[in-house]
Amino acid sequence: MQASEIIMKKRDGGRLSRDEIGFIIRGCTGRTIPDYQISAWLMAVFLRGMDDGETACLTDAMLHSGTVMDLSGIPGISADKHSTGGVGDKISIPLAPIVAACGVPVPMMSGRALGHTGGTLDKLDSISGYRTSLSETEFKSILRSCGYAMTGQTETVAPADRILYALRDVTGTVESIPLITASILSKKAAEGTDALVFDVKCGRGAFMKTQADAERLAGMLVKTGKALGKKCAALITRMENPLGTMTGNFLEIEESVDILEGKGPADTTELTLALAAKMCMLAGKCATPEEGRQMAEQAVSGGQAMECFLRNVAAQGGNPDQLLAERGKRRSPWKAEIRADRSAYLAGIDAYAAGMAGIPLGVGRTRTDEPVFPEAGVIFRVKPGEKVQAGDILMEVYGKNQSGLDEGVLRLQQAVYYTEEKPEEPESLLLKEIDDDESK
Amino acid sequence: MQASEIIMKKRDGGRLSRDEIGFIIRGCTGRTIPDYQISAWLMAVFLRGMDDGETACLTDAMLHSGTVMDLSGIPGISADKHSTGGVGDKISIPLAPIVAACGVPVPMMSGRALGHTGGTLDKLDSISGYRTSLSETEFKSILRSCGYAMTGQTETVAPADRILYALRDVTGTVESIPLITASILSKKAAEGTDALVFDVKCGRGAFMKTQADAERLAGMLVKTGKALGKKCAALITRMENPLGTMTGNFLEIEESVDILEGKGPADTTELTLALAAKMCMLAGKCATPEEGRQMAEQAVSGGQAMECFLRNVAAQGGNPDQLLAERGKRRSPWKAEIRADRSAYLAGIDAYAAGMAGIPLGVGRTRTDEPVFPEAGVIFRVKPGEKVQAGDILMEVYGKNQSGLDEGVLRLQQAVYYTEEKPEEPESLLLKEIDDDESK
Repeated sequence: MQASEIIMKKRDGGRLSRDEIGFIIRGCTGRTIPDYQISAWLMAVFLRGMDDGETACLTDAMLHSGTVMDLSGIPGISADKHSTGGVGDKISIPLAPIVAACGVPVPMMSGRALGHTGGTLDKLDSISGYRTSLSETEFKSILRSCGYAMTGQTETVAPADRILYALRDVTGTVESIPLITASILSKKAAEGTDALVFDVKCGRGAFMKTQADAERLAGMLVKTGKALGKKCAALITRMENPLGTMTGNFLEIEESVDILEGKGPADTTELTLALAAKMCMLAGKCATPEEGRQMAEQAVSGGQAMECFLRNVAAQGGNPDQLLAERGKRRSPWKAEIRADRSAYLAGIDAYAAGMAGIPLGVGRTRTDEPVFPEAGVIFRVKPGEKVQAGDILMEVYGKNQSGLDEGVLRLQQAVYYTEEKPEEPESLLLKEIDDDESK
Repeated sequence: MQASEIIMKKRDGGRLSRDEIGFIIRGCTGRTIPDYQISAWLMAVFLRGMDDGETACLTDAMLHSGTVMDLSGIPGISADKHSTGGVGDKISIPLAPIVAACGVPVPMMSGRALGHTGGTLDKLDSISGYRTSLSETEFKSILRSCGYAMTGQTETVAPADRILYALRDVTGTVESIPLITASILSKKAAEGTDALVFDVKCGRGAFMKTQADAERLAGMLVKTGKALGKKCAALITRMENPLGTMTGNFLEIEESVDILEGKGPADTTELTLALAAKMCMLAGKCATPEEGRQMAEQAVSGGQAMECFLRNVAAQGGNPDQLLAERGKRRSPWKAEIRADRSAYLAGIDAYAAGMAGIPLGVGRTRTDEPVFPEAGVIFRVKPGEKVQAGDILMEVYGKNQSGLDEGVLRLQQAVYYTEEKPEEPESLLLKEIDDDESK
């Protein structure tokens, strides 16, 4: 088999076999196929596409380019969630203990902040002492004892994806549904979960700008996950404004605790419960979404979810008492307030612009090797749809230093939109559900 | 400007500006853009295409990545011919002295044999002492004194093309009309000629298999050459059977001398005169093709073309007397005859198969650094359309050694096609003419 023949076959719109895809991925991981052939192949895939079968073969080959956790020793059907990335999206943090409290094991492998999107790992790292680099043995042990465990992707997870992603990033081959699907699933499936719910976001703060694109990706993710033998479902959700009332690292831990205490903002609470219900359904804990939602609400109101969270914090090296005591206190000294410059309704806060403001503030980063700052972030005091008077505080902003704060404030000011007319009631974040059966 | 943005623009079907194309080519020549970005860009160009303007900018940028000869000191309008490559195509060798004898300066920069196609330089190198690596000063001096000069492409000619071609070869991006056009013209225009006639071949022995593809390439070559300020025309010609009655290196020199003496085979003579007429017209030496053909015929019958050839042989280091004395004698000792295995008409000799047979024989090569053997080759004793009796000699075959001869013979035997019915008179090699005006 020759790489150039496989490139030409895809270039001419041909369907690649499992062997041909495996040859490319092995050559990529083993560095036996040079980057210039891989990138020509990526462009051919980008422009010619891949069908469901090819995408499943690609995902499978990428997944098995590295280690895959074996959770067969964990009783029950495990479930996890993957979000395509948003701003203020701390959902994983309250979601895992809620679902675990419903009796579903949640093995969660997460990523870091990059560009305008935040990363669950960076948020968890802001909990003093909390360890997000667990060995497989530790991960399984904590999963067994707490009902859920949180870890990062090690170097041994899907190495083919790291090589391919680095090339895609510089060769204009990122925005391809089959390549995105294979990238997401090859990393996510390495955690060994039995079921996966995808939160595919769309809107100005998401990678998918339109609902149609989000639905295409969601459909491909569910189909491909199913081809890998997993139970899958997806929610298409809005990502126009930052989620909840806080963005940042420790700030989002605080909002997560609020959600676990049943006192979270309406939007993040709604999304958390909807995702929890889906995970419980896929794991066979309930028959309907309503029943799943009820279970999740009870896990919150009964305190089991919070208890589960604190147990996990302790198991992963954090101090639950210290964490609770730090709420409302861990704030950077470089702070500013953004005030309304007119009396009007707040029409929206551009999630993309708000996410990009997080980079100078120290919430996010442009390169994965840059540090983030736990105490930086934004508290949104007014949510879209609410009325403001000129001079009202819209946001409290915390930066890593003065110049970062200044630039972040400038960007945040430009993210605010007003309207003179009272906006309609904010619509639900949930746009559509895609289930296993519908994706056939 | 960023390479990835230019890749994405072409990926999405955009039209690249002169600056963007220049940026890519400078980055390619200066090795500041990595190969993996160049190859993704090549695949995007392959699949999205380039319009006439982009192709002209690409050609110009590639041409000026290296040195370009300045022939402004040479009086008159210079003209040259480029062939897209065939089997038994020795036309350049008699053509240059014929056109030069008509008073048109012919500055000819040629290439080497590769794969199934022969190379003018390798044929010229088979003349003892003949030098095909001329300095610019030597080249111009011989062009002035003999009316034509023959040289190879040095390292300083279109270095961007060498880098791009090496990548195209292994990334499935060879067969793209804009990329082929830019590759051909960037090298050919470096010789500084004022006019160019393209011999675009089509058929089983050519890179373009169909007349439609050959016409598309010819049209693009003429348009692009014109955009570079050159007078251009093209002939679309058949390449189904090997041209003439000899393939090989010194053997093709012999057939060239036959043509210059007015005793060449009908097909190669026809093609030589047609191309000579076009070159004379573009150089303003005549008003019609008929007049041009007459001039060329007179240059042959009057002996001026032969005289011009021998003067050039001497000027470039060869010995004209020795060359003429060697005719019919320089034959490899490893020889064989291929005889007809039935009584029938010869329907054809697959030019591609015959060209590939030249590789084991030592006529051609698979890599540009392999040597070729002057005394190897094939004499075709029967031409397609003629009747043969079982046992008649079809070909005399000369190899570089016994094993090469054996393999070459085997391949040549498989290249022969018979027919029971008397074939129609062979059609003209000339399928179509494309002129400057028609390509607008």
